[in-house]
Amino acid sequence: MCQLLGLNANTPTDVVFSFTGFSTRADEHKDGFGIAFFEGRGARVFVDAQSARCSPVADMVRRYPIRSRSVIAHIRKATQGGVALENTHPFQRELWGRTWVFAHNGDLKGYAPRLHASFHPVGDTDSERAFCWLMQELAKAHASLPSIAELTTTLRELVPGIAAHGSFNFMLSHGEALWAHCSTRLHWLVREHPFRAARLADEDLSVDFASVTTPADRVAVIVTEPLTRDERWQALAGGELAVFHDGARVL
Amino acid sequence: MCQLLGLNANTPTDVVFSFTGFSTRADEHKDGFGIAFFEGRGARVFVDAQSARCSPVADMVRRYPIRSRSVIAHIRKATQGGVALENTHPFQRELWGRTWVFAHNGDLKGYAPRLHASFHPVGDTDSERAFCWLMQELAKAHASLPSIAELTTTLRELVPGIAAHGSFNFMLSHGEALWAHCSTRLHWLVREHPFRAARLADEDLSVDFASVTTPADRVAVIVTEPLTRDERWQALAGGELAVFHDGARVL
Repeated sequence: MCQLLGLNANTPTDVVFSFTGFSTRADEHKDGFGIAFFEGRGARVFVDAQSARCSPVADMVRRYPIRSRSVIAHIRKATQGGVALENTHPFQRELWGRTWVFAHNGDLKGYAPRLHASFHPVGDTDSERAFCWLMQELAKAHASLPSIAELTTTLRELVPGIAAHGSFNFMLSHGEALWAHCSTRLHWLVREHPFRAARLADEDLSVDFASVTTPADRVAVIVTEPLTRDERWQALAGGELAVFHDGARVL
Repeated sequence: MCQLLGLNANTPTDVVFSFTGFSTRADEHKDGFGIAFFEGRGARVFVDAQSARCSPVADMVRRYPIRSRSVIAHIRKATQGGVALENTHPFQRELWGRTWVFAHNGDLKGYAPRLHASFHPVGDTDSERAFCWLMQELAKAHASLPSIAELTTTLRELVPGIAAHGSFNFMLSHGEALWAHCSTRLHWLVREHPFRAARLADEDLSVDFASVTTPADRVAVIVTEPLTRDERWQALAGGELAVFHDGARVL
């Protein structure tokens, strides 16, 4: 199975510490990695069909502190679709003049939705099919960009229809909000004032967040398996769709 | 004005030599850079709002020999739209299950096409508006992915309507073909057997292509200003739309 990492913050925040721990797990998830950063309305997605352990792209991401308010990362162990760039998460599409980014961990059996509108998969994965169907149905439900609350209502109607086909842990963002859906395994926490030190679970690396933040900063981190040993991670329940905005869990 | 670089090859080819020379020109074009690589059906776009001279992303591209059959790169000097990631070329969209990539050099005055379908700009540039309109009209003209010849016929009908608004040097690719339209300035050549050495015009660097190719390899390079001193570059005429496929100029 793959692993997911998401970050949503109230101020542009670099993800180097979390991505360093997360990409350590790529030994078991060696069939590609990807990470999407929103910066303002712009988004950039760095992907490589190599493991995040040895990829020069992942190395650049670990060295270059890109500051973003919404990040989605994925390390892949191929289940459906070959090891190829077009099958590498996160996927992206434009809707209502916004970039949307999506990554999935799980396996949807026999999932072949009717894609009759403007969103078609480039690769062969169940994940990209699910993303295209979500985009198609969001586009049908709203004529222009709705509020985060309205988007959440629509997503809560749409997601169970896909989740019924298997395991559907996913993260979705349009730069402002980040939606995280749990089928089987997803954890989250919010880092805010007073900040403390934290130690990575996977690597001998710690950071004192108090030294790199201001009291107004707030960051939500969502991940398949807890990233640190000494912070209190909460598990999402199966079927739960959590919404993060400005570094907090909302709605 | 910005500068464009395109590459179309019959075998996956690395662009390190050409991009090294091209990115030297970023001193005058410091408002961001971007480069898109197609690999199979997949595409990845590396962008940075920093100059290609000092960007860690550009540095990674110069060191990591990504092999691609179709590449489009752009260095930007902002004319319309601020210096921001969402205004950084190349732009990308999905149509008919293919990724399309577009970059533009020039300035379209008062260009506000009616965008009534599925493609809307994320940023503020005339360039992205032109790309969205081209995608919209291609989608209207063909129900599914047409041949390169059919796409070329449609593009030759559509492009003059945009070019009438100003200067419209652009490159467009869906991974197989690369279309290059010249309003004011664009040069091209084909490198094929027997390969020779070439020396960059901008930097003291030369490469002997005979040592890094096989006799079957063929690469077309298209660029605003000739990249090398000792090769025979041809200028495209104003209003010309050139099509490159498998490393050759076609149609």
